[in-house]
Formats: sequence, C-alpha cells, structure tokens
Amino acid sequence: MFRFAFTLSLICVFTLTSLAVQASEIQPVRYVFLFIGDGMSFPQQQMTEEFVRQMGLPALTMSSMPYWTVTTTYGADVYITESAAAATAIASGVKATSGALGLDVHGQPVETIAQLAQKNGRKVGIISSVTINHATPAAFYAHNVSRNNMYEIALDMVASGFHYFGGGGADGRNNTNSPHFRGHIYDLAREAGYTVARTAEEIRALEPGIGKVMAFPHNLSMPYALDADEDDIRLPEFTRQAIELLDNPNGFFIMVEGGKIDWACHANCAVAAIWDMIEFDDAIAVAFEFAETRPGEVLIMVTGDHETGMLSVGHSSTGTQVYLSLLANQTRTFEGLTPMLERLIRERGEEMTFEQFKPFITENTGLIFTEEGNWQRGTLYLTHDEMTLLESDFERSKRAILDNGSGRDRVVRTAIRILNNKSGLTWGSGGHTALPVPTSAWGNQAEQLIRRIRDNTDIGIQLRPVVGAMAN
Amino acid sequence: MFRFAFTLSLICVFTLTSLAVQASEIQPVRYVFLFIGDGMSFPQQQMTEEFVRQMGLPALTMSSMPYWTVTTTYGADVYITESAAAATAIASGVKATSGALGLDVHGQPVETIAQLAQKNGRKVGIISSVTINHATPAAFYAHNVSRNNMYEIALDMVASGFHYFGGGGADGRNNTNSPHFRGHIYDLAREAGYTVARTAEEIRALEPGIGKVMAFPHNLSMPYALDADEDDIRLPEFTRQAIELLDNPNGFFIMVEGGKIDWACHANCAVAAIWDMIEFDDAIAVAFEFAETRPGEVLIMVTGDHETGMLSVGHSSTGTQVYLSLLANQTRTFEGLTPMLERLIRERGEEMTFEQFKPFITENTGLIFTEEGNWQRGTLYLTHDEMTLLESDFERSKRAILDNGSGRDRVVRTAIRILNNKSGLTWGSGGHTALPVPTSAWGNQAEQLIRRIRDNTDIGIQLRPVVGAMAN
Repeated sequence: MFRFAFTLSLICVFTLTSLAVQASEIQPVRYVFLFIGDGMSFPQQQMTEEFVRQMGLPALTMSSMPYWTVTTTYGADVYITESAAAATAIASGVKATSGALGLDVHGQPVETIAQLAQKNGRKVGIISSVTINHATPAAFYAHNVSRNNMYEIALDMVASGFHYFGGGGADGRNNTNSPHFRGHIYDLAREAGYTVARTAEEIRALEPGIGKVMAFPHNLSMPYALDADEDDIRLPEFTRQAIELLDNPNGFFIMVEGGKIDWACHANCAVAAIWDMIEFDDAIAVAFEFAETRPGEVLIMVTGDHETGMLSVGHSSTGTQVYLSLLANQTRTFEGLTPMLERLIRERGEEMTFEQFKPFITENTGLIFTEEGNWQRGTLYLTHDEMTLLESDFERSKRAILDNGSGRDRVVRTAIRILNNKSGLTWGSGGHTALPVPTSAWGNQAEQLIRRIRDNTDIGIQLRPVVGAMAN
Repeated sequence: MFRFAFTLSLICVFTLTSLAVQASEIQPVRYVFLFIGDGMSFPQQQMTEEFVRQMGLPALTMSSMPYWTVTTTYGADVYITESAAAATAIASGVKATSGALGLDVHGQPVETIAQLAQKNGRKVGIISSVTINHATPAAFYAHNVSRNNMYEIALDMVASGFHYFGGGGADGRNNTNSPHFRGHIYDLAREAGYTVARTAEEIRALEPGIGKVMAFPHNLSMPYALDADEDDIRLPEFTRQAIELLDNPNGFFIMVEGGKIDWACHANCAVAAIWDMIEFDDAIAVAFEFAETRPGEVLIMVTGDHETGMLSVGHSSTGTQVYLSLLANQTRTFEGLTPMLERLIRERGEEMTFEQFKPFITENTGLIFTEEGNWQRGTLYLTHDEMTLLESDFERSKRAILDNGSGRDRVVRTAIRILNNKSGLTWGSGGHTALPVPTSAWGNQAEQLIRRIRDNTDIGIQLRPVVGAMAN
C-alpha cells in the first residue's frame, strides 16, 4: 500500500536526474538555491510525505532529490542547537555559540556565502516566512552577538546591498530604544536605494530592472499557510519573483527559509507544520521549474537547521498504522483557532457551557463527542477521559479569557494534541532536539557536494568554493 | 567542544576512502559484508557516538563510512514495521507482510541474496547476537508465514547449506509439538554435515577446512555486551572466525546482526543498547581490517531495520546539553540487574527496608540519595519526587518477588529510566517507530549502491546484481 508513493518518487528521481549534467568533471554553476526548513528533520518530512500520500496530494518535490546525506547540527557550546548557530554554520561554515549570528566562536565576523556571492557581483535573494531579521535569514547577512538585537540586525540587512528580501517584515524596525537607532528601518532602506513594497499589489507590480527590493506584505511573520488568505503572497510566489528580479548573466544565490515549520512544531501543531512544509516544498518546485530552463547551470540544496518538537510518526494508541489524513479535519492552526475561541467565549460570556462549546471543537478539529466514549483506531471518537479533559480545559480557557489571564488557548491546544495523537503522532517536547537532519541536493555539483557533507558546517564549507567559482 | 569527534571522524573517512577503488567503472566484488543493527536508527547511533566521545573512547567505525543514505522501513501492510518484514526487504528486495519471512505479499518464497550467493558457489555466514532463528537472521535463509514458527525456521537453517552460523543458539530446537518435528535441530544439522560447536573452547578450536559450522556457545541469545563474561565469544570474534573459515577464491557473503540493540531499546535501557552498539561497531571494524588485506575486493554495508523505543537524545530536564557519560555508572543491563535484585530481596526477606535497599541503587546506577533532594543538571542527585517513586517501586518489586508475582523488575526499570533522563535521553515508547534509518557503505561499488537506495527494499534490489556478479 505504501509502494505507490515510493514508485512515484522514483519516477520523479529519474526525471529530475535526467535534467542533471552528466559530465564527470565539476562544472561551475550560475544559480544556487538553498532551501532551509526550520525545525525540519526526518520526522517532519516523513509526516508530510505520509499526509500527502493519504490525502492523494502530489508527492513532495523534496522527496525526489537524488542525493541525500545526514547532517549533525550541534552548536559550539551546546549539544542541542538553536537557529542562529545552526544557520551560521550553514551560511558560513563555522560552529557558532548559541544565539550568535555570523560570528565564529571568538566573536570574529565570518563572511557568509551570500556575502561572497554579492562581493563577486552575483545577485542575492533572502526569503523567509518568519520575520526577515529572525535568526535563519539574518545569519546570511548579519554579524551580531545576539539574535535578539533585531534593530541592529535589520541595519545589517539594509547595509547588505542584497537585491531581494521577501517574506515576513523586519521586527523592531522602529526601536527608538536601540543605542544604534538612526531611524525607521524601512526609511533607511529607501535611503539606501531599496524599493520597500508593503502590499500584495505593490509587490506584484515589481518588474525586472526595479533594483533592490524589500517585499514585506505583512507586519511581522507571514501567517501559517493553513490560515493564509487566498491572495496572500506565499513562499512559492516570493521565490518565483526573486528568480525573475534577480536573473542576470552573473547568476544569483537565493536562500528560502520555511521558518514557521519550526514555530508550528514548537506549538506541537502538526497540521500547521504540514501545510507550511507543503508550501516550502512548492517553493522548491519553483526552483526546479527554473532549472529546466537553465540546464547544467543550477544547484538546488535542501536542508533543515534542527529538529523541533521531538516528533515521532507513530503513537502508542495507533499501533503499527498512522491516520494522518485525519489531520485534515483541523480547519486552522492553533494560532488561527485561538482568536476564534476568544471571540466565541467573549460573545457568550460566563454562562457558556461546555455542551454549547462542543460544536466548536467538532467543527474545527473533527473530534467527535459521544455518550459512549468508545474510540476505535483510525477514528476521531473521543474517549471519556479525553472528553473530561476537554471540559476541564474549556473551563480554564474560559476563565482565562474572561479574566484576561494566561493560558487562554489551553482547550485549543488540548484538542489539537488529542487530534495529533489519534492521527498517529507523538510530540515529545516543545523545544529542539539533537536529531540530525536530512540534507539533499540536485543539479550541477550536487553529487560531489553531498558526498562531503556530514555536519551543518560542511554545508557552508562546501558551498563556499561553489559560490566563489560561479560561472560568468 | 564537539568539533573534536567530528574531526576524528573526517580523518577516518579520508583513511577509509583512500582504501576504496578509485575506478570510475563498477568492479565486481569478492567479499560482501552486510551489518544490520536491529532497532538502530539515527538516535541510537547519535547516542552511542556522543557516549564514546564523552567517555574518551575511540570514535565508532560506522561514523566513518564514506557514503550515506536514508532508508524508509514501512512494511507491506503497516506503516511501522517489525524485523521479519524489514529483514525480508533487506535480504530479498520485496516488501513483506508483518511477521512473514522470505515471502512476498502473495506468500511466494523469494530468493534471498544469501541464497543467491550460496547458489553461485560463494560461502555464506550468518551471525547474530539474538537466537539464530530470530526474524533478522532467519530472513536470509528461511521462508515462512510466521517468524514464530521457530522449529520450521531452524529446519530451513539446516537445509540452507550456508557454511557458518554463529551467535545465539536455535530457539525451539527440540520442539516435539511441531507438526514438522523430525528430531533435535542440532542432531539434524550434524546429519547434514554441520559441526555444531557449543562451547567457547570448541568454537575457538575450529580451523579452516572444517566445513559447515554452527557456533552457538549459549543456549539462546548472547548476553548483552555489558553483562557478558570476559571470555565470552562476542560479535567481533564471530565475525573474525567467519572470515577465516569462509575465505576462499570464490568469495563470501557475511551478514552480522546486532540484534540485542533492539531488545535493549524495547526495554528503554540505554547503556545496554550503547555497549551492544559498540560491540556491533567493533565487528564492523573487523571487516575493515580484512578489507585492508583485499584491496578493491570488499563491499561493506551497514544499515538498521527500524528504530526502537522512540528514542531522542535530549531531555526536558537537561536543556541543550546531554550528559551521556553518566550512563557509565550503570553496572549491568536491566537483565543483569534484575536477578541481583531478586537475590537480594529473597535473602533479606520481608523486613528489608528501602533505606537498606538504597545502596543497591547507588552502586548499580550511580543515582545519589540526599536529604535535600536538590538535583542539578549533569548530576545524579535524586529529587524528592524521584526518591518517593523509587521507594514505592521498591515496595512493589519486593512484594512481587516475595509473592512470585509480576513486575519484579519494576524498581530496576524505574532507576534506569531516571538515570537515562538525567543523562539527557528520552524514550517515547517500548515499541518500534517509523523513523527512517541510516544506511551507509564503503568499498567497491559503495557509492553507486548508496545513490540508488531510499527504501529498505532497495538494499536487497541493489545488492542482488552485486552478489550475482561477484568475482571469480
């Protein structure tokens, strides 16, 4: 029954491989794509692969990458890394101290591969679904002791001269408390020659020749894919636009981060992670579309920075099967459902009963209340214990919402956890783990590169000469 | 701080790689080694790598394998596989139904790569630390609807004609209740021309030219490496002997299973898994020693059949660090400690108090009792809650032992779980998970093989032509 997805994958592998240059010697590339799934390791990929299989959706493009390796992620000072150190390792090839961006362990700035590309006259694009000065994108242009110095990091972004920034806006962009405050970041960007486009309309109107661009349709991070409006600009569209605006004979380096995969996994909200994974994967597909038009000139690499959530595909209650298509019953992410819950409870007030609340749970998660409480594998019937827990957490959420206290989302998170478990998923933590991550590549030089990568620093180390010797 | 181990690994990679044939065309091999770590996936490997690093022990040989891939493990009928279906996929290249050995999904027997080697006049060795007719070794010589038909599987072993079986003895070997009972398996083996050696002395006395051998020094499975006697014959010695006895101009195929890694992970006993991993790795090193004497003629492949225990390296209590060297305080595995506990309680009887029992815990796990109960990260001081739990579980174990009831090992398992958590390990289940496994290879054809493997069936599919075209 699982053979089908695999066969599909294999067909894709052969199709994609046939695009690759067959030359036995290494050829310079002109276009480099680096895709980073934040918090994305084997379980996240596996969960998404099985979800699309069960849902009858197209197989993931990333499943078809022809060359794979396993990458360790530890930081210079910790066994379990965070995104700043991990992205610094990827972007610059050095182990960094937790929280530090673009600095080696001695605090010395290290040139990133994006900066090397820029220095050599290539165009650079940085795209992320989280805020553009968040750790992972920042590690490609900033040098700072702390990922929390948002304003200073944003100053580095303005100073970078990179030609395209897209996705979530700059956090702390008007932080007048910063000792380095020199004005609103977007004003400084405009002074530095950037077009700062803030609406979908403005962004979609940008045309090749526009020069340096910041395309930030949202105040901060992009909404989760599952919660997004239909006309929202998403990672694939940003990627396509970056390609169009940056395409030039000297080539480009584009980094795309699926940043909210990590946030979804911190929240243990599987369906949020899955749809952001699918969208991230669609962005990879855009790079492949471009690659078809530039045979032998493109390198595409996909990696993660660490695992988040201690996720396992499998749950004690579901035995040897998983039922991930059940997750499709969830209408919105935890972030989308919480304001709906708050609105409902504020409207109905103190007298709202759990009985009246049940339809909210069923409509938004698919969980089914019965008198009997006799759950069976592969179904969403609630057990008595689960119904009792939801009732008590409803009361706690209600109290918190009406009193403006903390823990307002409690019943939403409980319902999501129950849905995740019934679907066959186990979350072990709300933080990162040390699980290594898959790194894969396609295209010119991909095989040689992958062979030399075992640790996240190897990505930066091995990409440096590739970027340094891009075709002219 | 983590750089050191990695640098060491890299040096090994270069050393090992330099042994490999550099020819660009595929060369036939004469000697094929397949190492299967049962229950061994990324977390098991990562745990062991970090343990040896913290203990100052030599880096694992498997860490130095030059070519790696990621292998999915699902069964024909399940998402989370078990060893029979997984080993059938590896041995024969077909997805199998859970529990079935050497049969495709239609129940038709499939030739294993070991049988193909045998048919072509190569010599075959099968070594396992668990019973020799357990699922994984059996999948290389048996064809049976159920892994539980131990006697029938052992009959297939006798009929195989393979030249070397070593490790754990045959389970159910004198099962007179079997409808196929024809006599004691070892008697049948002798009739079929096997020398059945049952003691370390007999086994060590075997010399090349002896013919077909069964070398089973234990009644059933081998003891865990941590619990073994000093003069016990372990996986590396079995591997070395198989090489000596099977070496011939037509070459050999040797499969070595680290079978008790899985059993240790089922029991969530980290140190048991680690020392069995180290021993399994030492067996891999033996293959490399041999490879040095046969340049360009050897292929070594290492894989796992599935993950067991939902293990993560990392625990909520230890933050971004792990303290795996603390595990070295455990003197024996759960299996070694339980009889010690039983003996102690039977000796001291009803009046034995928890106070009197505390030294047993401290001596055998390193856990430290204090009045204060103020644990700190990286130490083995027990919290009040942990001490209370150990006391109550001591009483339950005592009751069970004195009444000959179930759950006698309860306090041992609790102490081990606490030790594992304080060391920075999380076990999520007592069963298997769907986490993919690392597959790696070295030597002649390794690079080409690894590139074509994404699923466990690909191992059997890709090894078949290699084994079929072994050098003459």
